[in-house]
Amino acid sequence: MAHTPLPSARDSMEQDQFLTILSREDALARFEAALFPRALPSERRSLAGALGCALAEDIVAPIDVPPFDRSNVDGFAVRSADLSSVSEAAPVRLKLNDEVIACGIAPEKPVLSGTATSIATGGPVPRGADAIVMVEHTQPTGPRAIEVRRAASPGQFVSYAGSDIARGEALLRAGTLIGSREIGMLAACGIERVSVVRRPRVAVISTGDELVQPGQPLRPAAIYDTNGAIVTAAITENGGDATFLGAIPDNEQQLESAMRKALANSDMLVLSGGTSKGAGDVSHRIIARLGKPGIIAHGVALKPGKPLCLAVCDGKPVIILPGFPTSAMFTFHDMIVPVLRRMAGLPPRSDAKVAAKIPVRIASELGRTEFVMVSLVEGADGLIAYPTGKGSGAITSFAQADGFLKIDALADQMPAGSETEVTLFTPHVRVPDLVIVGSHCTGLDLVTAPLARAGLVVRSIAVGSLGGLAAAKRGECDFAPIHLFDEKSETYNTPFLSEGLELVVGWRRMQGIVFRQDDKRFEGLSAQDAVRAALADPACIMVNRNQGAGTRILIDRLLGEARPDGYWNQPRSHNAVAAAVAQHRADWGMTIAPVAHATGLGFIPLAEEHYDFALVKARKQRPAVQAFLDALASDESRAALARAGFRPA
Amino acid sequence: MAHTPLPSARDSMEQDQFLTILSREDALARFEAALFPRALPSERRSLAGALGCALAEDIVAPIDVPPFDRSNVDGFAVRSADLSSVSEAAPVRLKLNDEVIACGIAPEKPVLSGTATSIATGGPVPRGADAIVMVEHTQPTGPRAIEVRRAASPGQFVSYAGSDIARGEALLRAGTLIGSREIGMLAACGIERVSVVRRPRVAVISTGDELVQPGQPLRPAAIYDTNGAIVTAAITENGGDATFLGAIPDNEQQLESAMRKALANSDMLVLSGGTSKGAGDVSHRIIARLGKPGIIAHGVALKPGKPLCLAVCDGKPVIILPGFPTSAMFTFHDMIVPVLRRMAGLPPRSDAKVAAKIPVRIASELGRTEFVMVSLVEGADGLIAYPTGKGSGAITSFAQADGFLKIDALADQMPAGSETEVTLFTPHVRVPDLVIVGSHCTGLDLVTAPLARAGLVVRSIAVGSLGGLAAAKRGECDFAPIHLFDEKSETYNTPFLSEGLELVVGWRRMQGIVFRQDDKRFEGLSAQDAVRAALADPACIMVNRNQGAGTRILIDRLLGEARPDGYWNQPRSHNAVAAAVAQHRADWGMTIAPVAHATGLGFIPLAEEHYDFALVKARKQRPAVQAFLDALASDESRAALARAGFRPA
Repeated sequence: MAHTPLPSARDSMEQDQFLTILSREDALARFEAALFPRALPSERRSLAGALGCALAEDIVAPIDVPPFDRSNVDGFAVRSADLSSVSEAAPVRLKLNDEVIACGIAPEKPVLSGTATSIATGGPVPRGADAIVMVEHTQPTGPRAIEVRRAASPGQFVSYAGSDIARGEALLRAGTLIGSREIGMLAACGIERVSVVRRPRVAVISTGDELVQPGQPLRPAAIYDTNGAIVTAAITENGGDATFLGAIPDNEQQLESAMRKALANSDMLVLSGGTSKGAGDVSHRIIARLGKPGIIAHGVALKPGKPLCLAVCDGKPVIILPGFPTSAMFTFHDMIVPVLRRMAGLPPRSDAKVAAKIPVRIASELGRTEFVMVSLVEGADGLIAYPTGKGSGAITSFAQADGFLKIDALADQMPAGSETEVTLFTPHVRVPDLVIVGSHCTGLDLVTAPLARAGLVVRSIAVGSLGGLAAAKRGECDFAPIHLFDEKSETYNTPFLSEGLELVVGWRRMQGIVFRQDDKRFEGLSAQDAVRAALADPACIMVNRNQGAGTRILIDRLLGEARPDGYWNQPRSHNAVAAAVAQHRADWGMTIAPVAHATGLGFIPLAEEHYDFALVKARKQRPAVQAFLDALASDESRAALARAGFRPA
Repeated sequence: MAHTPLPSARDSMEQDQFLTILSREDALARFEAALFPRALPSERRSLAGALGCALAEDIVAPIDVPPFDRSNVDGFAVRSADLSSVSEAAPVRLKLNDEVIACGIAPEKPVLSGTATSIATGGPVPRGADAIVMVEHTQPTGPRAIEVRRAASPGQFVSYAGSDIARGEALLRAGTLIGSREIGMLAACGIERVSVVRRPRVAVISTGDELVQPGQPLRPAAIYDTNGAIVTAAITENGGDATFLGAIPDNEQQLESAMRKALANSDMLVLSGGTSKGAGDVSHRIIARLGKPGIIAHGVALKPGKPLCLAVCDGKPVIILPGFPTSAMFTFHDMIVPVLRRMAGLPPRSDAKVAAKIPVRIASELGRTEFVMVSLVEGADGLIAYPTGKGSGAITSFAQADGFLKIDALADQMPAGSETEVTLFTPHVRVPDLVIVGSHCTGLDLVTAPLARAGLVVRSIAVGSLGGLAAAKRGECDFAPIHLFDEKSETYNTPFLSEGLELVVGWRRMQGIVFRQDDKRFEGLSAQDAVRAALADPACIMVNRNQGAGTRILIDRLLGEARPDGYWNQPRSHNAVAAAVAQHRADWGMTIAPVAHATGLGFIPLAEEHYDFALVKARKQRPAVQAFLDALASDESRAALARAGFRPA
């Protein structure tokens, strides 16, 4: 056994009393004060290699651009004074000089009064000439002369030397982010190499015995290392040069050695993992030995992200991100990105903000600034911000959010209907074409697949059947997928529709008892007999469903008054039931056939559940709604649903 | 001599009669119709390598995340029913099971009634347990038991299997742009490689005898190849894999061989250069032989960008960009980027738009949709859009613009004061901290350098002294740098100030006669004598300055009634005068000492010009204005100005 969480958790509680929990603003200010100002190391790069980097030096234009007085058209270099009296009625004849000025050809002969020199666009204007006449406004008269019928003003069609960029002017300032446009300015001046701020080298280490790298098989009780990949990518996105050093087990000696080596070879070290306090403590103890001043902030009054630890060791930032993915990503975004961009010489990321209304009350913890991840949909009168609330332990809370809203440390809630400001993760919101709010089903993904292929953006927000109905009544979605059983009428869904909603029939999902295929107790039994057999065996544990689920009603009917072991284990999804049985957390439960089969469980069918859609009538004519209805009725969808184990209605 | 522009230009005019000039919209629609729909080649990439790519396949979650019912806290796995009646007054004692569940450790023993199992955050909930009690809410009682003083609701601090991501759900759709958040979702499911749309391989060729690559010395009459570098970078910025093949001279055989080879190894070919019609024709003739259907649009009713040529050769797009940098970049941005992003599987670039007012009338050509590059400053009541109008031949017109406005093909102008919509090149406008509109001087760059170092954004818009005064009167800038000589009072600048403006004294610039150092005609003469000597020699050519320039007044005084050769050569800048003399376009002219010295010319001082600032009084208290005033008075600036040849006042 690796370690005992109980004692170390207590140690850390005691330790916490000596550490002040800082506000988000204080923590960031102290962290930045310990790191800046600092010299940013620079390196010389070719123009192509400098794309996306910050310029490390002021650039003064070394030449004039254009470098000479240039013709802007194909035509003839002339003296404007020769053409001062010219008109259609009184054309002027000019003798052609024995020279043709192409691009790249320096003129050798002057344009004397009464003459003209043939010149191509981009050619240098010859001595004596002060204007260009376009070829279209001339006529050849004989082999070596032209006739001109329009006057030419001095400087006509001439770009003077230095009129674009003047030698000696400040072309670009240090700190400028180099994009294609800056590269163009440098190239125009003949500059091929520039000094740029070297990308900060950032080492990333995941910690935890339980972590398995993506691509490897998952052991029981282990999880995939999410933070390693996401932090590495986020560093790249923000101007860092990231090196992921893998997941290190919670072994103090091994971890210290890895951290020392990583820090020696980089400008910054980011650790993540260590979800438990015990594991985190190991890293904290090591940081205290890595260099001065050490830990700047350990614990920030920020939600998600309280366990964030900020340190500076001999001038290099060392960060321990919280282990939970959404906490890790949000704190990285909010607290680490500003520092990383500053070390990379990049301008602060500018976050776009939009106004939105929240559809539901959001509770908040007093005393911590709380950031709530939200996804945006178009409501009847503006944007609606739905909390993507699967919690800080979920990766999807962050990954599927469009942005976040902030609840002040002094507020304990944000009431439903509040107007709020949402900071966007990407500059533009693409409001989805089709919004589906309610109970999710993998069958739904099959029906929306052709819409996605056609470029429509479909947003599906899983809030359960009742939450979906409420959203539909408020007009915040197009469809609410529901599977609500009315015990009075013994029918599905229709009794729950209110005015403005219309039922669109979806599909049937067979519900039944699941058990492990090697469990002989249930072999060959009916659902009723299977439950009887389970109740007869005191060692047999069930897994239930949450109150309000249609499945729960079926279970309660089978159980009658019985409350067997496991009755209070009440997950909220079909998948969780299957996982509990497959992993021996329970011996039986009730789920739908496709989930049972995907998990490789035995399945005893009981009854069909109706998975239908409450359609918001006012939205029926929208193209995306029609596209969904077409897809639902299509042979393609029906076949795909049948293959996946659903029964199209 | 490479080619004769005259005949080929005529040929192309005749050819043009057979080619319809298409509207921008028609040209793009036909180009896209010839290219799409098309299969987008895909490739497998590791997660890290997939950053910034578009997913080529729908991804279905292969596992539940979390994969098991997980504890969200450090504490004890319990049966909630055991704690149903617990309170501070009536604590319950639970016997500790002989097991500690750390992260990554699968539980082996069930939690029976009356017992609890120690569990770390992230640990799998054992069989029998249905809730977690936080360690903080317990007390150890003896070595193997705990006392609990709070009730636990079923499911408390448990994240059920699949509650984050459910096995079988559509995780990401084909076409999704992979950022760090998407990488997090894939990693959470253990996916390490994904199929992404392969970046389109784009070959870039510059054409033109006159082109020199940056980093190489510039020959007379040659210019640096700007488009090669800028197009290559812009392709990279928009999801392409660009290969720059260098500049090819205007030789049909050599160019065709290079184009065929480039096209064979890539998905797209972009040519640029060929500013003259003659040079362009070579590429057009070659394209006609490269594959079907060939040229789709040659000439688009678009300004800048009319000469754009769009072709499709055996399914691959081939584009000839106009040679002038702003034309090339704007047409690339407007017409090529949409196609490139679509080939890369990327969503259309979303351009942000802002409302702005134009301070000056903008003339436009009837019959062509005209795009005017603008830079934005904050006015008294909203954003002001200044045309960066150095023309399509200038790189800075595009590179220094914040965005562009559109003038309809049917309009011949946009009146001063019009409200218009500006499409931004980057999602956010950073309104500059300090706006300087007027006459530019390289000395100004020296004074603003410390502001730039301090992170202030300084925008300097060169519109000449009078344009600056007008902007200052309208309150569109902080300072207008001016050097206006009043002939009546024989003083500089002060007589030109109107109400609301205040003079800030800048520096003096010595004006004088410039000549090539090896020109013995001017050796040892005073300015007056030098002009007399020049007038006496009919072979001697001058370069003048534009009407309205302070320098022009000095020149006219020296010349009196004389109108020597070159009088009508009237460039608008000190640098152009120096370049004309250095390059033998002229033999003498008048410019300022620092420019004369930088160009290596002989200089005969004549009179000092006063370069001062009209300060908008209402803006005086702004921090950036104060910072500028401080910088102007600083020893650092004064020393830098003196070193550069200016005389601080």
